[in-house]
Amino acid sequence: MSTFSPSQILINPPQRLIHFLAKDGQIYYGDAILPNGTSDIAHATQAKVIKGDIFSQYRITDQIADIRMLLSPLARKDIGTVRCLGLNYEQHAKESNLPIPKYPVLFFKPVTAIAGPTDDIPVAQLAQEGEGLDYECELVIVIGKEAKNVPESRALEYVLGYAVGNDVSHRDWQIKRGGGQWGLGKGFDGWAPWGPGIVSTNLISDPNALQISTTLNGRQVQCSSTKDMIFGVAKTIAFLSQGTTLLPGDLIFTGTPQGVGMGRKPNLWLKDGDRVEVSLEGVGSCANKVVFDKPAPKL
Amino acid sequence: MSTFSPSQILINPPQRLIHFLAKDGQIYYGDAILPNGTSDIAHATQAKVIKGDIFSQYRITDQIADIRMLLSPLARKDIGTVRCLGLNYEQHAKESNLPIPKYPVLFFKPVTAIAGPTDDIPVAQLAQEGEGLDYECELVIVIGKEAKNVPESRALEYVLGYAVGNDVSHRDWQIKRGGGQWGLGKGFDGWAPWGPGIVSTNLISDPNALQISTTLNGRQVQCSSTKDMIFGVAKTIAFLSQGTTLLPGDLIFTGTPQGVGMGRKPNLWLKDGDRVEVSLEGVGSCANKVVFDKPAPKL
Repeated sequence: MSTFSPSQILINPPQRLIHFLAKDGQIYYGDAILPNGTSDIAHATQAKVIKGDIFSQYRITDQIADIRMLLSPLARKDIGTVRCLGLNYEQHAKESNLPIPKYPVLFFKPVTAIAGPTDDIPVAQLAQEGEGLDYECELVIVIGKEAKNVPESRALEYVLGYAVGNDVSHRDWQIKRGGGQWGLGKGFDGWAPWGPGIVSTNLISDPNALQISTTLNGRQVQCSSTKDMIFGVAKTIAFLSQGTTLLPGDLIFTGTPQGVGMGRKPNLWLKDGDRVEVSLEGVGSCANKVVFDKPAPKL
Repeated sequence: MSTFSPSQILINPPQRLIHFLAKDGQIYYGDAILPNGTSDIAHATQAKVIKGDIFSQYRITDQIADIRMLLSPLARKDIGTVRCLGLNYEQHAKESNLPIPKYPVLFFKPVTAIAGPTDDIPVAQLAQEGEGLDYECELVIVIGKEAKNVPESRALEYVLGYAVGNDVSHRDWQIKRGGGQWGLGKGFDGWAPWGPGIVSTNLISDPNALQISTTLNGRQVQCSSTKDMIFGVAKTIAFLSQGTTLLPGDLIFTGTPQGVGMGRKPNLWLKDGDRVEVSLEGVGSCANKVVFDKPAPKL
């Protein structure tokens, strides 16, 4: 078993943890090396290879690997529960014509929704029914150690780092067809691309004051700051940990600001072939292409 | 890697898969040996020990172990996504004064909600606020192999077996405080006790015709049949697999029949010390005690 205690991993974590396919054909965890003049991990071409288990015993080696493709910053086996908040930005609650929530509005995505920062967003036949395919840029919290009943004042100690994600949503399935629950319209395979890496808390002085934005085919459609969040990072973790154990590798998608396609007049829905990019200050960007599944051939 | 294909595990699965603490102090997977005169796995005192990985390569050995305590039928590491259906029994939809859903109403529980068939149900401080602590007996489907876009006619081939579970719920948090999403009121630690084991599909000729019931402190409060389900087992799996990959170890809690505390006049809420038992024909029972957390000492 590990000779490190779980808390130790938070003392010297990788600064920008990535999971990637290297040019040597291997898949590694790594600490991304940023080229001069960029803070976007998506631009990294090299990383220091990390050996071991990212949530127990590991070390950052001196081996430099060339990046062929960035993957989901955590391997599926290392991801726990994927929690998401709804209506967590004031301006978004207003554009949705809904009251400011008194408590965090919690829903979940299955781990199969997780995808990498440049993966296509597949749209299954079922999700091509009705209309309402939408984007949502979100700050993603990565839990680094077990958290239960933690006070807000100590909540950030349980964070491994931050990333950006797209809570892809189908409004018809989410709202009209789902019987009031949002699971159906947000949980399809690949509907939670995130990345490009996990930036350590020591590089993000205030997670509640980061610019966050979305561009659709190059046009900016969301642009806000995480300071518009109703429940900030520490408050969210503290609340969700009451009576519920958050585990290392759990993700929390913290809600989206105004500007989603549903909030626009006329509505702006994603189409086959669209390119959608979500960005978070100090972290970087995920750029994904929308690809509609073709109907199965008739036999 | 495994020399067995994933589909092979469904050819000769354990008849009654359990996970248990043995009298020798070890934790094993096993195939429960039923004493004469009972079909309730909870009464098993011995099991054949299973060696290996339950979702890839394993074998049922001739080693007999004595059972000290049954645990969650799958170890946490072997459990994937926990899906639940709401309003899936006609009479329950009626008692809830809600229309019959056109599509399955999908929500999720975190894996930390999973507990064993005799574990206490802990009620955290947060869940002691407001009122509405309730029970829900449910048929639980265990997915045995990867399923995506499967037709209803072949859906049962992807099932490892069936169990019974209690979808413990807090109506105030579920409905009034959760902003419309049910995640908060159903996801606390230990709020999905299930078991007592997983009965193979070859022992359950029709999962849509099983008696299902709950007793509270010995008094029967729910008693129905899975034939009242709106979306039966095969239909549920086929629908949920559209565009979404179901993985081995995923669980589906399939909704509860009428008789919940919320549907009664006056309401019948669980209290500290209550004993609640859920049972499913051909599978057995889970008997759990409700235990309210004590307030943290004031310093």
